[in-house]
Amino acid sequence: MPESRRIVTLTSDFGLRDHYVASMKGVILGLSPAIDFVDISHAVPARDVASGAFTLGQAYPCFPAGTIHLAVVDPGVGTARRAIAASAAGHFFVAPDNGLLTYAYEREASFAVHEITADHYFRRPVSRTFHGRDVFAPVAAALARDVPLDRLGPPVADPVRLKLPAVTRVRDALVQGAVLAVDGFGNLVTNLKPEDIPAYAGGGRACRMLAGSREITRFLRTFGDGAKGEVFVVPGSAGYLEIVMRDGEAAPALGLAPGDPVGVVLA
Amino acid sequence: MPESRRIVTLTSDFGLRDHYVASMKGVILGLSPAIDFVDISHAVPARDVASGAFTLGQAYPCFPAGTIHLAVVDPGVGTARRAIAASAAGHFFVAPDNGLLTYAYEREASFAVHEITADHYFRRPVSRTFHGRDVFAPVAAALARDVPLDRLGPPVADPVRLKLPAVTRVRDALVQGAVLAVDGFGNLVTNLKPEDIPAYAGGGRACRMLAGSREITRFLRTFGDGAKGEVFVVPGSAGYLEIVMRDGEAAPALGLAPGDPVGVVLA
Amino acid sequence: MPESRRIVTLTSDFGLRDHYVASMKGVILGLSPAIDFVDISHAVPARDVASGAFTLGQAYPCFPAGTIHLAVVDPGVGTARRAIAASAAGHFFVAPDNGLLTYAYEREASFAVHEITADHYFRRPVSRTFHGRDVFAPVAAALARDVPLDRLGPPVADPVRLKLPAVTRVRDALVQGAVLAVDGFGNLVTNLKPEDIPAYAGGGRACRMLAGSREITRFLRTFGDGAKGEVFVVPGSAGYLEIVMRDGEAAPALGLAPGDPVGVVLA
Repeated sequence: MPESRRIVTLTSDFGLRDHYVASMKGVILGLSPAIDFVDISHAVPARDVASGAFTLGQAYPCFPAGTIHLAVVDPGVGTARRAIAASAAGHFFVAPDNGLLTYAYEREASFAVHEITADHYFRRPVSRTFHGRDVFAPVAAALARDVPLDRLGPPVADPVRLKLPAVTRVRDALVQGAVLAVDGFGNLVTNLKPEDIPAYAGGGRACRMLAGSREITRFLRTFGDGAKGEVFVVPGSAGYLEIVMRDGEAAPALGLAPGDPVGVVLA
Repeated sequence: MPESRRIVTLTSDFGLRDHYVASMKGVILGLSPAIDFVDISHAVPARDVASGAFTLGQAYPCFPAGTIHLAVVDPGVGTARRAIAASAAGHFFVAPDNGLLTYAYEREASFAVHEITADHYFRRPVSRTFHGRDVFAPVAAALARDVPLDRLGPPVADPVRLKLPAVTRVRDALVQGAVLAVDGFGNLVTNLKPEDIPAYAGGGRACRMLAGSREITRFLRTFGDGAKGEVFVVPGSAGYLEIVMRDGEAAPALGLAPGDPVGVVLA
Repeated sequence: MPESRRIVTLTSDFGLRDHYVASMKGVILGLSPAIDFVDISHAVPARDVASGAFTLGQAYPCFPAGTIHLAVVDPGVGTARRAIAASAAGHFFVAPDNGLLTYAYEREASFAVHEITADHYFRRPVSRTFHGRDVFAPVAAALARDVPLDRLGPPVADPVRLKLPAVTRVRDALVQGAVLAVDGFGNLVTNLKPEDIPAYAGGGRACRMLAGSREITRFLRTFGDGAKGEVFVVPGSAGYLEIVMRDGEAAPALGLAPGDPVGVVLA
């Protein structure tokens, strides 16, 4: 038995119905047996790289250094898109080079990214449709055996990054942002931060959030502070403002989805 | 490597789509690395403490002593509701004090319950909306490092208990109970026990179950004993009578849900 | 702590909402603590033995020798159907004898199958409705402790096998097969193999696939090779031809389900 176990997290759009996730884990365990798996999510919407990037970006910083994050939302599997392995702040990542690591790139001061070209690490034969099993899983297992990144392939200077929605101050009194994600409770996670909002930052000015056709004027601290069925804003656990409904789902009530604009009027 | 690994089970309403469950696991692994996680369920209906309590109550007794059960169905997160850590019969529990441990309290002869006030164990900063990650997970990790309960805070004499539906003998010939849960097969788990029913207890008297607008007269031993599409009663694996449909779902067929009354006429 | 850990995979139709899967894991951990669990799927459609057999059949060969595969899709629980433990090529299996291991039987050159009759391994009392917890889980734990198969019960010469759809060459120019499975992406997995098709096997002859009311003439290498919304054929990761839709779901688009016939016209 090896002296120490490694954590491998998994993020994908494979769902939990089919054998795909287990096949990846089996391949890894066959190559590197002392692994603790943690599923981040396999319910990323099919081919939705932005959603997968958000979910991975929220979860990975909670893990200890040395963790290997395997992420496969890969509509371009088998085409010319690159496969990459990367590291930052002691974390390791294995993913297609399609923007899945965007939030991680944003968060970390420096990142080493390598293209995966060393195909002697791959499972044979390599299918064209399931690189999760045949390429990414065995490379994650190699990282668990402390194979250094530069053995996997050449450095990549320009990994693909998603264009994340910007926060812009339109006028002195208006901050514009967007919905980043909707969680399973129907909470709308925006890209606005509490420090932008006087209600949370200690300022005395009133403000209101514009979201879809609604104006939301209540900026509270947690779910239980609202009235039953009320829609209001809380500082969410991801560091962003969230629009929530007490005992209900804000997203369908407001008809908002990721990418939709929101704004805060400071006045 | 530490000398022994600890089992941590997780029960929540967080779903499997978002990063929430993985974030809790990452926090625990960062504080206490030798953990075997077992998910009990993360599909507890949102904010349904009674459902979460039932699911946890069924699963935890199957685990060995020393297991730490982390349960987060927490509509009152960030409000004045207490957080608690508890132990009974060698099992440990970490949960909001909202009744999630009710079935465990019922089952165990004695229980030590402590409020969690020792905030130096918490993850910083403590969000108001995700105590699963910031309070309960690090406290579970502390228990895995054998921190004793009394280091976490003062004893609690009056933990919150849900009022479970009672079994009452209305007349000599009628036993009234209720539906406790509906499982994923559509089986209706009642709070009536086989020993209450002559058909199972060895008595010769005929009996019938009243459930919704139905009278069920067949008390069988297992699913395969019924005819295709038939609705009947079996002694379920949780120790309670269950109303089931062969090759189908009894709950929608009978229009029954948790809390609805059922009765058995012994005559 | 034991010297080596064992992998136990789990495949069932228990879903992820209830306590059933965790109860099995708890029982196993109580009997044999050094276990790495990997869930293959618990979303097998209720009582669908053929679907469970396919999923298990795809996943198990990815795992290393020594792995114990626990599979419970068991509509006949508590009736006269046999329970079996089996081994082949270093893999171990525990399941009801209802055909769940059919794909494994097909794949492996030789198989040892034993009926499970040694009830001193069982959890007491044995319910009639949850042998996953009371029979299969403790037997899986026994296998993890290296209890040999012949201690569990007598050999079985005639384990139940599902009749898998055949591939037949109807005329020189027509190969007939069937849909084996639909995956979570809506891809239709057939039982036809790339080597049967000139487009993939290097032959020069044109061919077309007949599937429902469609004729599909494009045989491509991977998803990204098709046009948006196009339905086409790729060699799938399971070794079979799959009918897929670029950025969509082929199964509902074609109205096809497992068991439906497909054909390839070679001309």
